[in-house]
Parts: sequence; structure tokens; C-alpha cells
Amino acid sequence: MTRVEIEYCVPCGMLNRARDVAEAVLRQFGESIDEVALVTGDDGVFVVRADGEVVFDITEDAYDVDEIVRAVRPHVDGRA
Amino acid sequence: MTRVEIEYCVPCGMLNRARDVAEAVLRQFGESIDEVALVTGDDGVFVVRADGEVVFDITEDAYDVDEIVRAVRPHVDGRA
Repeated sequence: MTRVEIEYCVPCGMLNRARDVAEAVLRQFGESIDEVALVTGDDGVFVVRADGEVVFDITEDAYDVDEIVRAVRPHVDGRA
Repeated sequence: MTRVEIEYCVPCGMLNRARDVAEAVLRQFGESIDEVALVTGDDGVFVVRADGEVVFDITEDAYDVDEIVRAVRPHVDGRA
């Protein structure tokens, strides 16, 4: 089972994006992962980790919910 | 700093409620808590914990986002 972590910049107002990623990941893989954590951060951070491994970093890729869900998929047991 | 956990029943379709609680808690206390975790469960579970302590359980109380946010508040550093 898997833990997905979405660390987002609170003062930058990235909560909506973080929430949308959490929802999309859970809608897709809810039966196969343990939890999705919304982790508070600052300094513009928006990073998604699956079991500790970075699968998305806004400093490297454009924000795209579907792409993030696809990047999480290899880390999900059962590949739901 | 505080971890808030929302354990919800995946097959019951409680994701929307869990998401709404996560968002409300982070909107209120985002500067003062570490993370809000959406934890997958089944059997009708809908429990909210703040640092491990149950602050809401759907078997005991009616679902009300504002009430849940109020129940989390005493556990938040700085009482944001």
C-alpha cells in the first residue's frame, strides 16, 4: 500500500491545486492506496511524492492533474 | 504542529465529504498544521483525528464541516 504526499505552498494559495490532485488520485486509486496527505509548505513548493519518491515538482514540470495521476500510477499496488 | 487525519469509507462514496473537510481544515489552519491526511477505509467509517485523538465520528455525530473545523481547533498550535 502506498502513501501519496502533496506538499504545497500555503501562502501562495496553492490549496485548490493540491486539493484537486488529492481528489483525482483518490478517485483513481482509492481502493489501492493507504492515504493521500496534504502537507503544508511555503517558498512556492508544489511537490508530489509517492512512497517518498518525487513524481512531480512544479519547478520542473507544468501543473497538470492528469499527468500527476499518471506519474503516481506505477507506485500503486495492483495498478488500479 | 499537528497532523489531522480523515479516514473515510471509499466504497460508500464519502470522498467528497472527506475532501471538503480537508479543504476547510487547511483553509482555516493551513499556517499552523503540518498535514491533513485523507486515509482510505471501508465499512462506513468517517472519523476525523487530530494528533491521534478522535474529534469526529459519524457514528456519533451528524456530518457538519463547520463543526468538524471547530472540533479540530483546540488541537492547533497558535489557535489560528
